[in-house]
This record gives sequence, structure tokens and C-alpha cells, in this order.
Amino acid sequence: MVRYLITFSYDGSGFNGYQKQSGKRTIQDELEKALKKINNDKDVDVFASGRTDKGVHALNQKAHFDLDITITDEKLKMALNSNLPDDIYVKEIERKDSDFNARYKVEAKEYIYKINIGEYNPLERNYIYQYNKKLDIVEMERALKYLEGEHNFKSFTLSTDDCDNYVRTISQTNLTRDLKNPNLITITFLGNGFLRHMIRTMIGTLIQVGEGKKKAEEIIDIIKKEDRRSAGPTCNPEGLYLKNVFY
Amino acid sequence: MVRYLITFSYDGSGFNGYQKQSGKRTIQDELEKALKKINNDKDVDVFASGRTDKGVHALNQKAHFDLDITITDEKLKMALNSNLPDDIYVKEIERKDSDFNARYKVEAKEYIYKINIGEYNPLERNYIYQYNKKLDIVEMERALKYLEGEHNFKSFTLSTDDCDNYVRTISQTNLTRDLKNPNLITITFLGNGFLRHMIRTMIGTLIQVGEGKKKAEEIIDIIKKEDRRSAGPTCNPEGLYLKNVFY
Repeated sequence: MVRYLITFSYDGSGFNGYQKQSGKRTIQDELEKALKKINNDKDVDVFASGRTDKGVHALNQKAHFDLDITITDEKLKMALNSNLPDDIYVKEIERKDSDFNARYKVEAKEYIYKINIGEYNPLERNYIYQYNKKLDIVEMERALKYLEGEHNFKSFTLSTDDCDNYVRTISQTNLTRDLKNPNLITITFLGNGFLRHMIRTMIGTLIQVGEGKKKAEEIIDIIKKEDRRSAGPTCNPEGLYLKNVFY
Repeated sequence: MVRYLITFSYDGSGFNGYQKQSGKRTIQDELEKALKKINNDKDVDVFASGRTDKGVHALNQKAHFDLDITITDEKLKMALNSNLPDDIYVKEIERKDSDFNARYKVEAKEYIYKINIGEYNPLERNYIYQYNKKLDIVEMERALKYLEGEHNFKSFTLSTDDCDNYVRTISQTNLTRDLKNPNLITITFLGNGFLRHMIRTMIGTLIQVGEGKKKAEEIIDIIKKEDRRSAGPTCNPEGLYLKNVFY
């Protein structure tokens, strides 16, 4: 039995999210179907670093699974990619010790969120969040910095979700404008973990700051309140990418 | 009656090409349906600068039509975009004299073709042609230059198409590699007109040069032969973009 760790990318726009749900097209289900074919028709359970929601993309998602067939890493990569649909792609295969776990061993994750404040581009409608009004980018950048550090992020997650521990550490954030196209804004978050909808709710709140509806400093109060109603709306999924998972 | 010229962009991946065909989703049909709603349920004929094939994109396609309703250009743009599906977008509206014709007044068109010779990216599968082997880019660039000028391009068009005149002038070509990602190659063609499949067949031929199957100089013979069998295969549509139309 060999434990494998795979790095893979996917276009979230054609999926009902990462996690398996009966009757729906999901990334986990496609991976498990492809692996079953490779594994002589025996089921294989795939454990990802975490789920992503419907419409959210991944550039370097990670998952582990076990196989007891004899196959080289290169052939496994080819077999996976030839059995997967063309909106999922396995980039890398590694072998790990049997106690490695793609979910529980995560040390940090990096997400990016893309916003276009320029003219709508139909070719990017599934890949960039389109915002049609002006945004005060300097204020948004100031607000972003208040999200850094160890905080209880209960205000930024699904109010229906019951969770043992809402404390997470965001170690780094960044807001950049594309050199060629300054209307394309990319916001980066590096942290030890993120709650469900957390990044999209932080983005929705940052946009309210950019609109002048909230002041940058209000982020401090929103965090303190530990109440979902204090934060802004949950922004669309299409701008969100899981960029890296670190172990 | 006012003659309008519109500039619009579309994601070709969800369409069976530009031109109306019964029972199929096309860009022309979506435009005419949207205009009919705006024009008090009266039919409007839309005349584009030319058709694009299934899967081909447009960044700045142009088309004309006539309306006899009273509406400001700004409102017409909004009405069009709110009645169009989200994979077509009207960028600009201009009023023209009644003798203006979006097809017959074309002076030049610019197309680009994108090729990725790096790792496959599932998020770009509908927008960049994926080529998995090495290409001799310097030879391709040399071959590209032989396509410039006034030539009979019969070798590069559909052999089943009957056409009065196969002579076209390509005034400028260009091959660039993306600064951030040198595996992304963009080939640009500026010309007074292009035959059906012409750019995709030129690209298929250039790729054969890049593979070492043809020499750059052979382009001269291929043009001379005026025979479709002398050129390379017709390359995929997803890498092709109509970038500009000039009047």
C-alpha cells in the first residue's frame, strides 16, 4: 500500500464544489471515479486539504489516497489525467509516509481573489469577479491589514455552521493591481486555515470599505462582535482560487 | 431609421459560431433576439464584419443594424447588454451613415492566436491552444514572415469552399512570448481579409515548422501550389481571437 499526495488544478465553474454529493458533478467524485478505474475497479477514498465551494477554482489543491497496485509515479499521473475530465488536471504525484494526511497536516494555505473594476469581459466571467463601480483601493488595502494576525473569525463564516474553534491566523495579506491592467485587482491571503465562506465574506466586507459604506478601522469591531451580521455580504465564488497548500 | 455600428466581445466556447443556424446557439441569433425585444418585437437583421467559427472568440467584433425607435446610445447599450446572455457583451455603440456596411467597408482585421507550450491549465482549456511538445519558435517566426504580403491563399482555406478570389494581403505578423510566462505564445495577423479557416491552417502549418516537419522556406512553395493538401492541418478554434476590425 502506498500513500500518494497529488497536486491538482481545476476550473470550478463546471462543478458543484469539491465535495462528493449524490447526483451532482463534483471534483472529489471525478477523482474517485478515475482512481477506481486505475485501481482495478476497487473504490479509492480521496482526502483533500479541504473542500472548495461551487464555482471556486484551484491552482494547486492537494489530496492524498492509498493504492496497492504497482505503478510508476509518471504512469499514475498519465493514467489519472487520461481518465479525468479536461477541467481537472493532476500536476504532480508524490509518495508519502502512511501517517501523512493531506487535511490534518496542513500548515498554511494561500488563496487569491480577483476583482475587475474595468469593463466587463465575457471571456473572464467565470474567472474574475466583476464589480461595476469605483472602489477606494487605498482604503481597502488599509482594511485588509486589520484582518492580519490571530483572530476569532466567527463574524466571517456561515452563521449556520457549528464549529469548535473560530480562531485562525492570517499571516500575510496583499493587494496588487495588474501592471498591464490596473483595473484587475488581486487580493492574497496566507493563513493557517480558513473557515467556510471566510475569504468571500472578508472580500464582501472589503468591498463595502472600498464603497465608503464602512471605514477601514471598523474591521476591528466586526472581528470583536463575533457575529455574522456585522460583516459584509459573501462575495461571488468565481473570483476565488486556492493557490497553494503548505505542509 | 438610424444605422448603428456596435463593437462587441464574446466567449466563443458556448456557441456554434457567429452565424445563425436553425436550432443552434449562435452569436448572431442572440444579438437578433435581444434587438427584437428592444425594437418593439420587430425583427432586426444584424450584419457583422464576418463570421467566426464554433469556439472562436472575439474581443472587438463589429456589426451594423438599423433601428427606427428613439433611444439614446447609452440606453441602447444598456438595453442590449441586459437582454444578451453573459457570454456576449456590447462595448460600444456608434451611429453611422445609411451607406455604411460593417462587412463591405472593412479595411483590415487583426486576429491573434494563443498557444501554450507549458503545462496544461484546465482554467484556460477554452481560451488557449495546448501543445504538449517542444516547438522551434525561431523557425516558426521565420516561416511567419513568408506569409506576409499579397498572396493567393487558396492552400490555406477549406478545399470545399468555392470562392471568387483567394488573394489577400497580410500586412503585418508578429510572434511574442509572454514576459511572465514564456510558454505562452501569441501570434498576430493583420490583413485586409482572411479566408475561412485561413488563420487556423496557417497556424497548423507554422506548428509543423516548429516541429521540424517543414522548413520555414517551404511556406513559399505551399503558397505557390494553391492546393489545400500542401499546407498543414487546421488548428483548433479555442486559441483564435478576432481582436480588431478597422474601417
